[in-house]
Amino acid sequence: MTQALKTDLYQLTMMQAYFAGNHNPYATFDYFVRNIPFGSYLVLAGLHSVLSYVEELRFDADDLEYLAEQNFFTHSFLKYLENFCFTGEMFGIPEGELAFPNEPILRVRAPIMEAQLIESFVLNKINFSSLIATKASRVVYASGGKLVAEFGLRRAQGEAQLEATRACFIGGCSATSNVYAGKNLGIPVTGTMAHSYITSFENETDAFRVYSETFPDNTILLIDTYDSLEGARKAVEIAKEMESRDKRLKAVRLDSGNLLELSKKVRNIFDKAGCSYVKIFASSDLNEWKIQELLQNGASIDAFGVGTEMITASPTPALGGVYKLVEIEDADGNLIPKMKLSNEQEKATLPGRKTVWRLYDSYGLQKEDVIALDDEKIDFSGKYRKIHVSFVEKGQVVYQVPALKEIQLQAQKNLSFLPEKYRALDAAPSYPVKLSAGLEKLTKDTARSLQAPELNKPEAK
Amino acid sequence: MTQALKTDLYQLTMMQAYFAGNHNPYATFDYFVRNIPFGSYLVLAGLHSVLSYVEELRFDADDLEYLAEQNFFTHSFLKYLENFCFTGEMFGIPEGELAFPNEPILRVRAPIMEAQLIESFVLNKINFSSLIATKASRVVYASGGKLVAEFGLRRAQGEAQLEATRACFIGGCSATSNVYAGKNLGIPVTGTMAHSYITSFENETDAFRVYSETFPDNTILLIDTYDSLEGARKAVEIAKEMESRDKRLKAVRLDSGNLLELSKKVRNIFDKAGCSYVKIFASSDLNEWKIQELLQNGASIDAFGVGTEMITASPTPALGGVYKLVEIEDADGNLIPKMKLSNEQEKATLPGRKTVWRLYDSYGLQKEDVIALDDEKIDFSGKYRKIHVSFVEKGQVVYQVPALKEIQLQAQKNLSFLPEKYRALDAAPSYPVKLSAGLEKLTKDTARSLQAPELNKPEAK
Repeated sequence: MTQALKTDLYQLTMMQAYFAGNHNPYATFDYFVRNIPFGSYLVLAGLHSVLSYVEELRFDADDLEYLAEQNFFTHSFLKYLENFCFTGEMFGIPEGELAFPNEPILRVRAPIMEAQLIESFVLNKINFSSLIATKASRVVYASGGKLVAEFGLRRAQGEAQLEATRACFIGGCSATSNVYAGKNLGIPVTGTMAHSYITSFENETDAFRVYSETFPDNTILLIDTYDSLEGARKAVEIAKEMESRDKRLKAVRLDSGNLLELSKKVRNIFDKAGCSYVKIFASSDLNEWKIQELLQNGASIDAFGVGTEMITASPTPALGGVYKLVEIEDADGNLIPKMKLSNEQEKATLPGRKTVWRLYDSYGLQKEDVIALDDEKIDFSGKYRKIHVSFVEKGQVVYQVPALKEIQLQAQKNLSFLPEKYRALDAAPSYPVKLSAGLEKLTKDTARSLQAPELNKPEAK
Repeated sequence: MTQALKTDLYQLTMMQAYFAGNHNPYATFDYFVRNIPFGSYLVLAGLHSVLSYVEELRFDADDLEYLAEQNFFTHSFLKYLENFCFTGEMFGIPEGELAFPNEPILRVRAPIMEAQLIESFVLNKINFSSLIATKASRVVYASGGKLVAEFGLRRAQGEAQLEATRACFIGGCSATSNVYAGKNLGIPVTGTMAHSYITSFENETDAFRVYSETFPDNTILLIDTYDSLEGARKAVEIAKEMESRDKRLKAVRLDSGNLLELSKKVRNIFDKAGCSYVKIFASSDLNEWKIQELLQNGASIDAFGVGTEMITASPTPALGGVYKLVEIEDADGNLIPKMKLSNEQEKATLPGRKTVWRLYDSYGLQKEDVIALDDEKIDFSGKYRKIHVSFVEKGQVVYQVPALKEIQLQAQKNLSFLPEKYRALDAAPSYPVKLSAGLEKLTKDTARSLQAPELNKPEAK
């Protein structure tokens, strides 16, 4: 089964209209994000699936048969689809890099029929993965160096689980409970036990003991099934039994109640019993705000398990990235910049083929970004880099997606160069994204030509 | 690739502990929902994938090799997994039925190792699909009989798109923009055109004309690219051209601005031009509240396209359904009811093997539900039905999942029997869910035996 039909019907009907109108000029589209639903930055993810998609993009007999049954499409258009493949180019910002509002994250240049078809897939994939990678980076930031394991499978939006787990890892999680994701992505897997495991035994101590004997090197006991402090005391018994076998209880998990108070009391119970080595692991509908509050108040928690809110980016479960036409070739081969004008200033788009430069201060921290025209000569002082790279040329993927662990490290490094104030969980200031002189001029000229096309046409060209 | 590893690691480690402890009693688990994030009811969906999953549940060589590499599992446990299959039974409430808080939606009875493994998959699938089907039913309800098309692919949580589209259809949407879902699920596909299509032409009228000539029977023109009223006037020109070819412009689409005012003005433009047959289609970050407000204020809108908020159930993107142990066999084969006690009353669970009865008033409207013990003899007066059916027996699926359209119709019928007040978008009252006398007694007895096990043991048995 191909992925070619993972698109909105209107892409195909527009393609047929282009086809019928013999209108298939080279066009450039930008994928960008106007508003980030939380915080000031995005951690990018999702590109990898776009690259394998464009490389394999074909309609098979099954797809074409289905389309033929829909009574929308002509025989000659379906014939065209039979030989369809993506022949264009893609530039943009790699996974694990940061991006900010209005920056072209992915720039697609191709005959408009090709560029149009892939819009829905590009949006679906990069919107979602970048949303989750960013959310995870906030949770990991709040945890201040303590490990975060992703526990979201049961509350993930169905089959989004696999790519969501990948994005959480890029955002900084160290492990997942999701075995399928572990196998398919090579992410470390982790887990403890459920309340039902405990209650299936006659008593809690038996349940603990069987587990500790089964996993002598990997026992994390869930202690809140009946009473967390009572559970901690029973876990001490087990720890002592394990010590007598030269083993160590790895950790206990708290999954309900007042985690702040309970974690301190449980810490105390273990310390008094001489088991300071036993770690405390906490879960229970956590998010970045709850974790920050726990740690600011001195909770004795060594690691967090985070599920629902991270894996769905609750309460803002969608990133509204868009894909807009920014340049098109006219019948004479001239490149015509395009933009959307809007009464709402922020809904306007930036015309032309663009790239992004990132400027750093003398400490190596990010200072500002500049969106510039692709071919513009710019004279920056100090440290800077162009963050656009080439992904696809003539339909062939020329970019090697790094190993997942590499992308995670890259994201971590990039976040460390972002000044602290931009990482605040709430009310982070906007990161400065400026337009180059060339882009400013092109935007003004294009806007003018659109507002009064007759008057400005000679000037705009 | 099998789906066997779509589980949390702890299910497998618990299984190995059960295996090592030679503890694999028959156990009954209930899937139920304590709180519905919006409204009073759930439209159930997602069961179909659980049924195909349990039927095919096997670990292949690849899965086992991966597990062996994890250093958690013993050779003998992996040998056991080699021949693993689900041998238990499943009862519950079918897709397209309504459910209410605390009702057992799916009841799984199997050796505890089997029942434990499938927990994560059951939760992942039924939580998400029921969430979206319910959200969609709210959007459709707000639309008061006007058609709702699902336009969510670009903002869906990645690969959740397919099952989300299915759930939206169950919840009452008439069509989708998602061609992949259309092909795989047989849902009607629909679509119009994008702003980029319009802006790729020299002018709006050309873009409209090419489209209307390409799709003489299916033209819906997007009129807000430059100015919605100007766009409407140009669409009238096109409508007249189509009339001269004995064709009719189907509709126009508004996608921004004040939809209430614009829809009235656009309606007026078409009516004055003698094109009353042209429908007005609206989209633009819609949700159930915005649609209700538009229609209450007399918007001239004939159909809605709804994406982001419906396909992700924003702002409450997860349903917190849980899967809890409610009964277990002891070493002597006695059935021991189990429950979770909690200081928070609402976190307590109902013990025992249960079923759900639905009672109707003399008008045929839903009156109340009763959760009862499975084997309890109950004497209801009036109209009632048992809503549990058998899905799986001895590991074999015995339930025929109806065609998707049938499930949609069933949901629509069931919603029509739910009194209006329970469908309010905000502050709907709780629907009455009562416990039978037998279940009340079992719950009290089980709670007492847990609170003072020594004292109550003889009485509890």
